[in-house]
Amino acid sequence: MSHPSDSPSNTTTHASSTTHTERDLQRYETGYDAWLSYVPLPTFPATDHVEAWATCCRQIHLTAEQQYPVIGTAARELARGISAMLGQSVQQNDANLQSPVASELSTGIWLIPLHTIVTPIPATSPSNANTYELPEWLTAMYREAHDDVQQCMAQGEEGYLIRSLPIGNDVNENSGTNNNAKIIILAPSPAGVLYGTFHLLRHLGTGQPLEHLTTTSRPANRLRMIDHWDNADGSIERGYAGNSFLYANHAFTRDWDRLHDYARLLASTGINAVAINNVNVHATETLFITEAFLPDVAEIATILRGYAIRLYLSVNFAAPIEAGGLSTADPLDEAVRRWWQEAATQVYRYIPDFGGFVVKADSENRPGPFTYDRDHADGANMLAAALAPYGGNVIWRCFVYNCKQDWRDRTTDRARAAYDHFQPLDGKFADNVMLQIKNGPLDFQVREPVSPLFGSMQQTNQILEFQIAQEYTGQQRHVCYLVPQWKEILDFDTAVNNRFAPVKHIADGSIWQRTNNGIAAVANTGADGNWTGHLLAQANWYGLGRLAWEPNLTAEEIAWEWATLVFGQDREVIDTVIALLMDSWPIYEKYTSPLGIGWMVNPNHHYGPNVDGYEYSAWGTYHYADHQGIGVDRTIATGTGYTSQYEAVNQDRYDSLESCPDELLLFFHHVPYTHVLHSGKTVIQHIYDTHFEGAEEAAGLLERWQTLAGRIAPGLHAQVAKRLSEQAEHAKEWRDVINTYFYRKSGISDMHGRMMY
Amino acid sequence: MSHPSDSPSNTTTHASSTTHTERDLQRYETGYDAWLSYVPLPTFPATDHVEAWATCCRQIHLTAEQQYPVIGTAARELARGISAMLGQSVQQNDANLQSPVASELSTGIWLIPLHTIVTPIPATSPSNANTYELPEWLTAMYREAHDDVQQCMAQGEEGYLIRSLPIGNDVNENSGTNNNAKIIILAPSPAGVLYGTFHLLRHLGTGQPLEHLTTTSRPANRLRMIDHWDNADGSIERGYAGNSFLYANHAFTRDWDRLHDYARLLASTGINAVAINNVNVHATETLFITEAFLPDVAEIATILRGYAIRLYLSVNFAAPIEAGGLSTADPLDEAVRRWWQEAATQVYRYIPDFGGFVVKADSENRPGPFTYDRDHADGANMLAAALAPYGGNVIWRCFVYNCKQDWRDRTTDRARAAYDHFQPLDGKFADNVMLQIKNGPLDFQVREPVSPLFGSMQQTNQILEFQIAQEYTGQQRHVCYLVPQWKEILDFDTAVNNRFAPVKHIADGSIWQRTNNGIAAVANTGADGNWTGHLLAQANWYGLGRLAWEPNLTAEEIAWEWATLVFGQDREVIDTVIALLMDSWPIYEKYTSPLGIGWMVNPNHHYGPNVDGYEYSAWGTYHYADHQGIGVDRTIATGTGYTSQYEAVNQDRYDSLESCPDELLLFFHHVPYTHVLHSGKTVIQHIYDTHFEGAEEAAGLLERWQTLAGRIAPGLHAQVAKRLSEQAEHAKEWRDVINTYFYRKSGISDMHGRMMY
Repeated sequence: MSHPSDSPSNTTTHASSTTHTERDLQRYETGYDAWLSYVPLPTFPATDHVEAWATCCRQIHLTAEQQYPVIGTAARELARGISAMLGQSVQQNDANLQSPVASELSTGIWLIPLHTIVTPIPATSPSNANTYELPEWLTAMYREAHDDVQQCMAQGEEGYLIRSLPIGNDVNENSGTNNNAKIIILAPSPAGVLYGTFHLLRHLGTGQPLEHLTTTSRPANRLRMIDHWDNADGSIERGYAGNSFLYANHAFTRDWDRLHDYARLLASTGINAVAINNVNVHATETLFITEAFLPDVAEIATILRGYAIRLYLSVNFAAPIEAGGLSTADPLDEAVRRWWQEAATQVYRYIPDFGGFVVKADSENRPGPFTYDRDHADGANMLAAALAPYGGNVIWRCFVYNCKQDWRDRTTDRARAAYDHFQPLDGKFADNVMLQIKNGPLDFQVREPVSPLFGSMQQTNQILEFQIAQEYTGQQRHVCYLVPQWKEILDFDTAVNNRFAPVKHIADGSIWQRTNNGIAAVANTGADGNWTGHLLAQANWYGLGRLAWEPNLTAEEIAWEWATLVFGQDREVIDTVIALLMDSWPIYEKYTSPLGIGWMVNPNHHYGPNVDGYEYSAWGTYHYADHQGIGVDRTIATGTGYTSQYEAVNQDRYDSLESCPDELLLFFHHVPYTHVLHSGKTVIQHIYDTHFEGAEEAAGLLERWQTLAGRIAPGLHAQVAKRLSEQAEHAKEWRDVINTYFYRKSGISDMHGRMMY
Repeated sequence: MSHPSDSPSNTTTHASSTTHTERDLQRYETGYDAWLSYVPLPTFPATDHVEAWATCCRQIHLTAEQQYPVIGTAARELARGISAMLGQSVQQNDANLQSPVASELSTGIWLIPLHTIVTPIPATSPSNANTYELPEWLTAMYREAHDDVQQCMAQGEEGYLIRSLPIGNDVNENSGTNNNAKIIILAPSPAGVLYGTFHLLRHLGTGQPLEHLTTTSRPANRLRMIDHWDNADGSIERGYAGNSFLYANHAFTRDWDRLHDYARLLASTGINAVAINNVNVHATETLFITEAFLPDVAEIATILRGYAIRLYLSVNFAAPIEAGGLSTADPLDEAVRRWWQEAATQVYRYIPDFGGFVVKADSENRPGPFTYDRDHADGANMLAAALAPYGGNVIWRCFVYNCKQDWRDRTTDRARAAYDHFQPLDGKFADNVMLQIKNGPLDFQVREPVSPLFGSMQQTNQILEFQIAQEYTGQQRHVCYLVPQWKEILDFDTAVNNRFAPVKHIADGSIWQRTNNGIAAVANTGADGNWTGHLLAQANWYGLGRLAWEPNLTAEEIAWEWATLVFGQDREVIDTVIALLMDSWPIYEKYTSPLGIGWMVNPNHHYGPNVDGYEYSAWGTYHYADHQGIGVDRTIATGTGYTSQYEAVNQDRYDSLESCPDELLLFFHHVPYTHVLHSGKTVIQHIYDTHFEGAEEAAGLLERWQTLAGRIAPGLHAQVAKRLSEQAEHAKEWRDVINTYFYRKSGISDMHGRMMY
């Protein structure tokens, strides 16, 4: 394919190569570029005026690249994606919309960060927008888009508007050429332009036509964050995809190429914040906020900044002692407060747009304000005061649970802990503190109810925390597409104040007009070639970002996007992958712990079946299975009273054996094995049936995948087949252990007489 | 204390200092010198003629030191021990018994390796012994000791004879001085002299008088070996006392001082062989038999040689491939055989007295002859042929068990595996092959029957393998004195050929006049200050060596020796420590897995209770507990048939529910929880009672230890108190988990109504 013959009037700054190299192909087979592999399109994505649109796609016009590196990022990505997908070269041109221009813009894709041409955006009327001689069509579009643009502004300027302009009347339709074909990505900020660019690439990659493209989008959640649990020694807590690509041997790997590749993947899904170190902060990471490490941290921040991502650091609450040499970390101590102020000042000297601190305090042996007889608000607000002058945030995790005593007893209920600790503090946290709340009251089990903290803190900024890493859901050796689970959680109606109050509107803050809110998630990435170990686990990573941007996307839509972008447009492949992803969570649930009871995994590493693995823990993670029955009574009348933490409607639903949904029955009730579920089956027969089914269906996943052999890249096919094969084997182990355990304990035979080993 | 005023006629080569330095005291509080701390004696160990014996103890006369470094080792140790215990200096004198000497030897302690003066020892009559002009008393003693000496010779010349010569008639008894006081350590070899020296030091250290000392001793077992499971990376498999002191970071630590200190502790108990690397041989250790590592290995061998200890290496059966670049390790392949011959030749070039190879093959994923469709005899004999020209041995471990299939089934019985694999090969192994057989059929559980391989291979050299490391018995965090367990095993009557055939006579080879036999044990030592983590775990280390030398010692005697040598001669201290040690195994058994069923530990690391930890393993380590009963049916009629591997009398005893001893009931039988034991209790009540008792008694161990505060060195007291405190806590956890598990499973209440959590 030749370069366009009509040389543009503006300077050519970039021309992409148009063919996939051998190295690109190898990389593709690895899965390294994931959903940004830019698989060549089978047909040009336009139904009419193909040549006009092809010409349009050869030109990128951008403004303000020099001032805004993110604009450059967007243009490079667009050139890369178009050249790979369409197989044609792309030229990049500097445009200056602030100088008077011709009444008609050139053909091409225009990246327009609105605030570079109209500053400030008028609050009530677009009339002032004509400060410059904007082309008529742009002014019109701006007027038309006004409401959307206003909305974008309210969400931190991250929204965008994309239009493909209709071919003008002056076109000779027979010739099929039309210099007027244009695509405009208009956004209030460079970040919005970047997100719009990724939208356009996704639009192309999923085979949508270029004509009549008109869309606006803005993120539902202001904060869309990934938490790394990477340690400076190179390990990753709950990491299932190799070691850290950030650290090794207590130093930064300085693999900036990989960091760029990582950042573009994040940005493409809409992620705008990253905490780069584990919330369990060890000695080396404690020093990240000191001169010893800040130069490296700042380099990372600079790279992330080019992708509109802010860097956060997890900090050690005891840092004033461990890094500062003070004798206390008491949050009300003046010297401690000063130490944190100076630490913050120093961090911002290196990283002017530093996001803030993430803190896990007073949990699982981490230090915290309790040591000094202070509460969590004292601790969080102290850090918030240090960061406030620079616009930084404190993200304070609510994963706090303490043993009531040395030894376990029947009254301990870990599910109560987060609410018991934090709800009484509602209204006491500073404006730049966000409480980060895990989706459920326990710990990312395959099935839990929604944390009752959502909705119970109306005067507190809240972040919903998911875990992309599949700690309890197969550890990226089993496929378990978590987006359907997340959707259920986002859509769960907390019924706060007797109104429709789904979790997604608490997470995004809209229900109480809070803006410092969002969604965060624990990363599932590592140094593995495909980032996530299991290729299909990429769909969770992708899905998390997409959902954080737009919680109303369906799990199927997200699966469709991911599958199409990774494997290309073979309909059978896509349908198979979508079905396989959509079935995977129910299958995983079937062969693991039943009916919402959770746990039943090996302690510490959490892989593989161990029914009593946590049964004797002092932390209240019990199933109470005996020879007669199983389940935890969390009702108000006879149990731990956990249900009282919900609003009345949910409280009643969970409290009653009749209305409690089957899938959470054992989370809320202790019942005999002979209790009959709404499904009509007894609990024990449900356990047997689901485990036989689950193991069989896990084997079926592999069979279904094998039908794709020859239809997708061999490298991608083989790596998934290997994992699915392990899963099929391991699912049998789960089936066997769980069924045998309950058969031996209950003495009740399977009604179908199947073999219990 | 002054040096002796009468300077000896021979050259003074050594004078020991007479006071404990500050550093010595610190070292003592650490426990570093263990039973060779040489605690100062409260009174001089003679009842009469104290000054004469004191003078005697100021002189050590030794012969042949130059040719035999072991003689020098003995003399140095003697000087060190005497000077510390008696608080007096010691002089060392070279004597030459081969030259005509005076009719009367000087006062002092004489170290006489017999073969340096009479070579060879006459086979039938002592008359030829007078080749040289031996002093009359020595000739007489030699005549008297002849039978013992002959016996010593038969056991590889390692025996010894000690006499304190009666004070002559020429003594002025009133003055109490007598230059004639003498102590003679006479042995057929330098090693025997060393062992006799340690005997004399033990005799002194335990406060026995010097008069009328007359003893002979020879080792029951020719091979008395310690197996290190140390890895080149510095870790120790099943190591509970810190990292390896031999290796770090894939190199030798070259901490030769520590190695000397280690070797003297070994030698003092009679150990004469050490395998310095793990039987699971990784890449680096595979190269130990190559030029890359042999210089370091040889340095270790040289140090050990000074303590009469031979060095062995664990080898990788696949070494011809991994280190030699061959394409096979088939034991019948000519190139492979040649490779091993050359490897052996090279090893002996560096280490002329190299002991041989230790091999774990075809077990737990180690390579072995099965890969090539050969049997264990093919594999072992191939290595034996390579070592035979140099007098080396192959020690071939019988810890072999394979899954019958991918997945577990009810017919798999790991207990059968060793016998099934090896018994059919009886008579096929070369003379310099020894099969190393674990004491029980499983894996060092708190209670197992004796391995049926003992007695079933009459034409095969056998080594009894114990584990000093407390892998399943508290991991040196709990006190568990294993000598009583080992005694039971040694005294177990296999009833082979319908005769009295205790395991100790199979281990020592006497029953079938085999000489290449012995006892080996997995080390419990590491880089910790006191070598074993738990100070009291030293008693196991000490006891193993003592038992291997003399299996008829009682567990109490050994405990008494160890306690006295470590803590000194406070009777109350010694009695308390002995009682505590003697109670410890029964207590540990009480609160852990009951009635011989074993396992019930967390997988992999094996610490802490987990009733189902190995229940779903494919390896056949089951308890089969269900709501009605528990136990493994290993009978011939209805079970796995494991009992058929025993001689009839034991077979019958175990097969019958009536005669099977309570403590092994669940190992051999599956019974209802309501089954009544010989003790009169039901199985379930036995479980409850023992676990309540065990936890209580574990707490009692700490209380009893606390009574010793102020009576023993604070450093020693504190370190044990800390461990006992952890044990008391952890025993409660065991009690709770086991009792709750069985209460929930059986639904049967404790008849005493105690709380089950």
